[in-house]
Amino acid sequence: MKKDLIEPRTLNGFRDYLPAAMIPREQLIETAKSVYRSYGFRPIDTPALEYKEILAGKGGAESDKQMFQFQQGKRDVAMRFDLTVPFARFAAQNINELGIPFKRYHVGTVWRGERPQKGRYREFVQCDFDTIGTTSNSADIETLFIIHDLMVRIGFSDFTIRINNRMILNGLLETLKLESQSTEILRALDKLPKIGSDAVMIEMREQGNLTQEQAEKIISLTTVQGSTAEILNSLEQQLSGNACGEQGVQYLRELFQSVERAGISNQRVVLDPSIARGLDYYTGTIYETFLNQLPEIGSVCSGGRYDNLAERFTTQELPGVGASLGLDRLLAAMQELKLLDEISTPAPILFTQMDQKYTSEYLRLARELRLNGLNVEVYPDTKAIKKQFKYANRHGFKIVITAGANEFDNQEWQVKEMLTGTQTAVKEDDLLEFVTQLLS
Amino acid sequence: MKKDLIEPRTLNGFRDYLPAAMIPREQLIETAKSVYRSYGFRPIDTPALEYKEILAGKGGAESDKQMFQFQQGKRDVAMRFDLTVPFARFAAQNINELGIPFKRYHVGTVWRGERPQKGRYREFVQCDFDTIGTTSNSADIETLFIIHDLMVRIGFSDFTIRINNRMILNGLLETLKLESQSTEILRALDKLPKIGSDAVMIEMREQGNLTQEQAEKIISLTTVQGSTAEILNSLEQQLSGNACGEQGVQYLRELFQSVERAGISNQRVVLDPSIARGLDYYTGTIYETFLNQLPEIGSVCSGGRYDNLAERFTTQELPGVGASLGLDRLLAAMQELKLLDEISTPAPILFTQMDQKYTSEYLRLARELRLNGLNVEVYPDTKAIKKQFKYANRHGFKIVITAGANEFDNQEWQVKEMLTGTQTAVKEDDLLEFVTQLLS
Repeated sequence: MKKDLIEPRTLNGFRDYLPAAMIPREQLIETAKSVYRSYGFRPIDTPALEYKEILAGKGGAESDKQMFQFQQGKRDVAMRFDLTVPFARFAAQNINELGIPFKRYHVGTVWRGERPQKGRYREFVQCDFDTIGTTSNSADIETLFIIHDLMVRIGFSDFTIRINNRMILNGLLETLKLESQSTEILRALDKLPKIGSDAVMIEMREQGNLTQEQAEKIISLTTVQGSTAEILNSLEQQLSGNACGEQGVQYLRELFQSVERAGISNQRVVLDPSIARGLDYYTGTIYETFLNQLPEIGSVCSGGRYDNLAERFTTQELPGVGASLGLDRLLAAMQELKLLDEISTPAPILFTQMDQKYTSEYLRLARELRLNGLNVEVYPDTKAIKKQFKYANRHGFKIVITAGANEFDNQEWQVKEMLTGTQTAVKEDDLLEFVTQLLS
Repeated sequence: MKKDLIEPRTLNGFRDYLPAAMIPREQLIETAKSVYRSYGFRPIDTPALEYKEILAGKGGAESDKQMFQFQQGKRDVAMRFDLTVPFARFAAQNINELGIPFKRYHVGTVWRGERPQKGRYREFVQCDFDTIGTTSNSADIETLFIIHDLMVRIGFSDFTIRINNRMILNGLLETLKLESQSTEILRALDKLPKIGSDAVMIEMREQGNLTQEQAEKIISLTTVQGSTAEILNSLEQQLSGNACGEQGVQYLRELFQSVERAGISNQRVVLDPSIARGLDYYTGTIYETFLNQLPEIGSVCSGGRYDNLAERFTTQELPGVGASLGLDRLLAAMQELKLLDEISTPAPILFTQMDQKYTSEYLRLARELRLNGLNVEVYPDTKAIKKQFKYANRHGFKIVITAGANEFDNQEWQVKEMLTGTQTAVKEDDLLEFVTQLLS
């Protein structure tokens, strides 16, 4: 009977994850979760779909246009485009039950109907953590520790976390009476690494109506050089008499003191008064993390302190601090830096099957190894042994174990190391120890 | 400034997961993944959104009606309502790259616009595993092993996996020339535990046009009692001369032989010729798993063998076998059986902060414990110590560590066990060993 087949295809901007891509992805997410948990952060989840009014209007017209939205029954609904807006709704709705302070992490898929580009998809996973309900600088310092430990646990050693505090710039803008132009100034400062200080000054003067002197003072503050202590002293001087700026300097001092006490390398945590992180959202400490070998991919973990997470939903003030791990960027970087194994199986050991008569034996012994903590696959068919070895090679198995009539007569198993081709006959009682040794 | 607040609420049928619900959920999913991986199953993911034509028509009109669907640009799209239809599309699209046999697991959210009921939501997580590209009985036996090991690893000991093979009934229907009535017969048999054999016979006669003798033969086959060996012998007799039925008996024999060889209790794996599992989908071994203490919640892990996964999308035949873990049912059962800890923190240890002057010290020591594998939270504020202990109690911390000026002078920390109230002063060098001991 001929059937009409449906063409199997995915939507533009969406993708399947095959095992070779999914295995490192799952590992990365698990590592992130375990670091978050180690700091006492608690998992939450929120629905993929929300009332449209919950999501709309927050990220500006740009975000609204990118939302996947539709009518469900009589309701206008939309798919979440980030985890922050749903967290704001979640916090407003549940904070009385949860209590403060509240530390959460959230790994979840989000959807944006933007034009797909190379490496840019309409569906991707975000991996956020936040502490809300406290203005304590302790939470900011901890956020930095988490970013640091996260990067190390993922497998990076050569990275730089750039730190700044918005109160520094805000303090100067207060002194210069430029608070109302902060949006334009921040936007211009974000271009500093790309276009340089002269061009930024021109933009600030044109877009923010600054005088040359004002622009110079801002550039002077944001480009101060030296050791951490020297920068802090210089900032203190420039902000002298401004409470907000002085408080910012004090918070940064405490942070760098804690970094030193914790024995974290000051190569990895750098005070950088030039980082601004976009628009008006952040109000205190800000974080950006760069891989020294691949600075061009941009920050792989960013965040900061904000005044009031849930102000659209509740009058209760919920200040917070947090950051977001850029999964896709990190995975791309790990691939480029050859930090990923080229495997498509989570099991290093494959049992072949030579004779169906012995299926129970293959299955039994493989399971015994598993009960001792090893990951073991059994090839399901008794196809030509060559074919089974080809399968082992293709998927990156490290060890292949075979046994036929001869081996069963001698009560031993043939263990082949795929990398060297070495094959050894091993008694069943010695097998666990033998393969554990090979894999270590 | 008064603002217009948006009411924070979730859509009907959708829910937030708070930490107390999310912590066991994540643990359960992680356990399932680690068991799947231990058998060499590989993770995949597919998009939440698919072309509507990919998803429509498969589960029948019922599923189509339940799909969340909308227009995106000019395309008709829908949110996946299970992981099986997307897997069929995925397999057809990628199998040449993946090769066969292909073992995959997939944990993912699905959406159904059905009427929400108690315990029934419009968004939930499925947790499936399948082996495709082989007809080998070895894969069926392994599927059983996985279900067994999964239940044990989750923490259950008292469960029964009921096994049958559709070839048994299909063989009998061939003999009785009733193949064309199989849908009606299966539907009636599914009601056996609820309405009993007399009522099932009446339904088969009325809905399937069976004679009394035919109905009796079917009931005789599906209700045969005795030891596994006795049931197999009886089935063999009743199906004598029918190739399909005899093959089914042979597969079951091999399966129970492997169970015995693997040392799995025959209390936990039971041959039950009465289970039918719904309609025409399954063609070989079928599995249902019940908790002996809570049989009324139904099967918590079910599945079976099917002829051709991807026939709607490709002419390549992809036979397979697999099962799906019922996360929500399992969690409800674990709660009822008191298998879940009542905690809302992944960290057993809380550091309080008594004096802001020492923040660096609290953060440093907590991090040191973490680097030794412990999960440790630091309370971010220096609020009244009573308040911090209240927080510790509320969230189920087991150990609270405090230190003020006295302790810092003496270079020791106060360790309080929350369950007993015992408090001990411990030198910093001994702290790791001391708390590790307490937690073990």
